[in-house]
Amino acid sequence: MTQSPNPTAAMLVIGDEILSGRTRDSNLHFLARTLTDHGVTLAEARVVSDDHDAIVAAVRALSDAHDHVFTSGGIGPTHDDITADAVAAAFDDHIDIRHDARDLLLAYFDSRGVEATEGRMRMARIPDRARLIDNPVSIAPGFTIRNVHVMAGVPSVFEAMVASVLPTIKGGPPLLSQSLRIEKPEGEIAGPLRGLAADFPDLSIGSYPFSTNGIFGSNIVIRGHDGARVSEAMVALCALFPGQPA
Amino acid sequence: MTQSPNPTAAMLVIGDEILSGRTRDSNLHFLARTLTDHGVTLAEARVVSDDHDAIVAAVRALSDAHDHVFTSGGIGPTHDDITADAVAAAFDDHIDIRHDARDLLLAYFDSRGVEATEGRMRMARIPDRARLIDNPVSIAPGFTIRNVHVMAGVPSVFEAMVASVLPTIKGGPPLLSQSLRIEKPEGEIAGPLRGLAADFPDLSIGSYPFSTNGIFGSNIVIRGHDGARVSEAMVALCALFPGQPA
Repeated sequence: MTQSPNPTAAMLVIGDEILSGRTRDSNLHFLARTLTDHGVTLAEARVVSDDHDAIVAAVRALSDAHDHVFTSGGIGPTHDDITADAVAAAFDDHIDIRHDARDLLLAYFDSRGVEATEGRMRMARIPDRARLIDNPVSIAPGFTIRNVHVMAGVPSVFEAMVASVLPTIKGGPPLLSQSLRIEKPEGEIAGPLRGLAADFPDLSIGSYPFSTNGIFGSNIVIRGHDGARVSEAMVALCALFPGQPA
Repeated sequence: MTQSPNPTAAMLVIGDEILSGRTRDSNLHFLARTLTDHGVTLAEARVVSDDHDAIVAAVRALSDAHDHVFTSGGIGPTHDDITADAVAAAFDDHIDIRHDARDLLLAYFDSRGVEATEGRMRMARIPDRARLIDNPVSIAPGFTIRNVHVMAGVPSVFEAMVASVLPTIKGGPPLLSQSLRIEKPEGEIAGPLRGLAADFPDLSIGSYPFSTNGIFGSNIVIRGHDGARVSEAMVALCALFPGQPA
């Protein structure tokens, strides 16, 4: 496929609980769908543990390589929430409780009669050069520093923060796709499919095999920025494999 | 937490379909649970697209940094299955259709009356220095080269290949864990929890918040290799937060 005109992004998931198998991450799938719709190419994702050095190294590498980085996890009130400090360190920025974040939290705690514990106030630790990300669900903000958007891991909060960040990001033309379910094993369609891919080098043509109820088949997905070309390739694909169920 | 005695592993998920949000990966969660039970620490995971250079770079980086690397995806018969060639390139190994893999496939195709298409025979492309990984589900083998285990992305096949590889891997003592559900918001338990973590520096103590049906709480998970220590910390945790539901 030719170089996409779209900006690229990476996701960094932070959390021992994913790597130990305790929790199943769902934020990657949500972000992947959302960015694709927004015309941003999610080019890479990484999962690292709650380890300062691992977070610093991953933030630096991904920030250098992509237009945007989205992190999830590790910005809560407990001792194992070390993401904010690690991201500050990655960019050699100073971090402490910041007035704007503190004021947001204090007003919220006050309105709910909740005590401003030391743990809760840790959520106001924001690097000096960062911009706050609005959190309409539970107020404690995320933040953007350089091209890195630091967000919570709890899915409802993560999704709300993505919604807050997205309007600030310029996406390219959305990637259009059409797909065809072919009820033949991949081994039989691979040859013609390779020919099709060669005829449409400007498109991405993927084959995603399945086997259900004894039927071996594959979903062929054609993706590209030019809708007319995607349709043209789909017509050619249907001609190669006539009579597939709609 | 003190250095674990366990070998470390990384997972590399290969596939545009995950990064575009078309498919939700489930192999990471399966591998994470399986390795944890086997006494291997999954330290890192990455997802890259079906891109030769991206796969080569990730394989090299992860192979250098960890005792084992497990890849999933991109070893089928179609044009977008480029993992085997990329892994061979990562280790400067020669790759072509190999006799042992070809014989396995031909016998299987013959027994099923299936045509040995060029696409299907691509699944016999194995680097010269690799060892085959048994695939009891659909025969087309995975392979191990150096410390990298290359496996299929289809979950049933991935899981069968992991089962084939696991007995060849020496695990450390399993990581033991106990958890307590605390029905208080994280902000209220953060302080005592920090003290507990300081008292048990040899253990990993994680806090995983939840909110369900209006209840804000957190699951506290204590992990370590010494069961007696884990129990000791759990007793101390229960004393800090008495009266939690069992």
